[in-house]
Amino acid sequence: MKSGDGLHSYSSNSYFQRDIINAANQIVGEAIVESLDILKFSHSTTIRVADLGCSVGPNTFFAMENILEAIELKCQNQGLHSQIPEFQVFFNDHTSNDFNSLFSSLPPNRRYHSAGVPGSFYSRLFPNHSLHIVHSSFSIQWLSRVPKKVEDRSSPAWNKGRIYYLSAADEVVEAYSAQCAEDTARFLQARAQEIADGGLMILIFPARPDGIPHSQLSANILFDMLGCCLMDMAKKGIVSEEKVDMFNLPLYFISVQELEAIIERNGCFSIEKMEILHPTITSQSLISTPHKGQAISFHIRAATEGLIKAHFGDAILDQLFDSYSRKIEDEYSLIVSSKTLHYCAVLKRKTMN
Amino acid sequence: MKSGDGLHSYSSNSYFQRDIINAANQIVGEAIVESLDILKFSHSTTIRVADLGCSVGPNTFFAMENILEAIELKCQNQGLHSQIPEFQVFFNDHTSNDFNSLFSSLPPNRRYHSAGVPGSFYSRLFPNHSLHIVHSSFSIQWLSRVPKKVEDRSSPAWNKGRIYYLSAADEVVEAYSAQCAEDTARFLQARAQEIADGGLMILIFPARPDGIPHSQLSANILFDMLGCCLMDMAKKGIVSEEKVDMFNLPLYFISVQELEAIIERNGCFSIEKMEILHPTITSQSLISTPHKGQAISFHIRAATEGLIKAHFGDAILDQLFDSYSRKIEDEYSLIVSSKTLHYCAVLKRKTMN
Repeated sequence: MKSGDGLHSYSSNSYFQRDIINAANQIVGEAIVESLDILKFSHSTTIRVADLGCSVGPNTFFAMENILEAIELKCQNQGLHSQIPEFQVFFNDHTSNDFNSLFSSLPPNRRYHSAGVPGSFYSRLFPNHSLHIVHSSFSIQWLSRVPKKVEDRSSPAWNKGRIYYLSAADEVVEAYSAQCAEDTARFLQARAQEIADGGLMILIFPARPDGIPHSQLSANILFDMLGCCLMDMAKKGIVSEEKVDMFNLPLYFISVQELEAIIERNGCFSIEKMEILHPTITSQSLISTPHKGQAISFHIRAATEGLIKAHFGDAILDQLFDSYSRKIEDEYSLIVSSKTLHYCAVLKRKTMN
Repeated sequence: MKSGDGLHSYSSNSYFQRDIINAANQIVGEAIVESLDILKFSHSTTIRVADLGCSVGPNTFFAMENILEAIELKCQNQGLHSQIPEFQVFFNDHTSNDFNSLFSSLPPNRRYHSAGVPGSFYSRLFPNHSLHIVHSSFSIQWLSRVPKKVEDRSSPAWNKGRIYYLSAADEVVEAYSAQCAEDTARFLQARAQEIADGGLMILIFPARPDGIPHSQLSANILFDMLGCCLMDMAKKGIVSEEKVDMFNLPLYFISVQELEAIIERNGCFSIEKMEILHPTITSQSLISTPHKGQAISFHIRAATEGLIKAHFGDAILDQLFDSYSRKIEDEYSLIVSSKTLHYCAVLKRKTMN
């Protein structure tokens, strides 16, 4: 994610994510009150919460505050008035995340002890059974890597002339889907070890509703359009076509069915909730907004700029996202007729004997 | 501390601290083997260690590795071969510390889960009873702030024409001593809450041996010389004298007697060890080194540059430390005839009923 608080930064362009997190607040609060085994943790004087893929804030602070409020409510409901636990919140993201910015913007009167944890959530980050609630929003759609085959010229899954799996060969889609399945399995395996029995995992993620083809997902259309803009620049000789061939986005929008199957195979979590979120900002509601192309372009730029810069250098960024912004305006009807649904899944760590 | 790994960075100029940490390694290892109540923690599958005032590395990584080795040895000695716990290490420093650098230089094959904790160690940083070992080296000599009186023109403790308490009025020395006593009491109070009963606190710090006057401490002489260089620049009109009057270093070298009295008043810790360290680099051993003035100047610059820059701007830095380097060369006999001792204190959290 783009750090700092400038025009193209993540913190200035994550209001859409915040809208989704707000839409999830009630579900998350209810899930904690209904499903968290707070009495199981009463031997522990500290409740430990982790946000995986927290970026630089402020969304992570709102999400954590909502969770802690719900835990306090749960304690009160259980008559644990005098035993409100202490909270320790772990903010996790890649080592390259701007933790300095995150730390300097921590809310001054927070009710928790805070810590930053650098590293990929596709591996272990915390001691065994040490967490009570894990939260992750807008993160599990990011794969641990671009699938190897997609970048291998000798493979039928080589993704020439595209940066994404939409409108690609079946082999490309399968390679992305397999990478996502592998990553999600590793994610669940690591969390199954780290979350205490009875603890909760809250996942907020964009997904493909069951039975809906990839091509009807607005997020997919948007990333495909970005690839088209890069190919247009290659045709004009601004970037080399070979460089575009070797660039792919490590992103996959899982279907609910796929996710449920992986959770089932893992076996350590029960699914307490799997609900569709209803944000106030939708592609429909954007229709009357002037500069909607620019707004969406800024949003996608905040999320992808780091990857594009690392591969192509920063000289092309402004031109790329200007043309992208115009393309979104021109083809907006495609986006309106498609959709990406956002889900909130609440999983509970089963008690094993 | 100066971040990055450039000429004047802390990481390039902290070999003296590393030498002291190395000198402490054996004492720390022995203290853990002799005094850590590992069986008391056997209900916990994780041993939590914190380094307070860790800066950016690599010294903190060496210190943590040494501690974890000793804990493993202790476990083996107690026959807990199959129960070697997991480790979680918390790296703490001010919010303005460069945690991004710290995180990117974490040892790749470390045996612990790591987390960064931003904030002043003069307040609470961790949940109750959550830590088993706290380590802090070269940090507790830094006060939480410059004593108020020292910057108050109407106070008899106003420190005009100096940046430090050496060769200042008694009231200035008393104000520094009182600030240190208050800070150390707060430090111990916070740690008494955070450290589990039977847990250890290892403090490595430069100090004034009992009965030795402030003026015979080489560290004090060095900081006084830095003040003289600033006053020389004021006399030449390079900085305003008023600006020098309003600048003071928040540093105090406590005596062992003062520290022991504060630990006694706190009442929660027993003193297991209080030993003088014997580094290989001493002011005597530097005598034959060419450029010793520059070496010491770089060392002091790495620690103080941030404070000086914030008050005077960065334009004066090179000139100030060049003249400082020459002054150290010229007056090196003063340093050789003085000394600063470094201590390793091992405190144990008492078990309260």
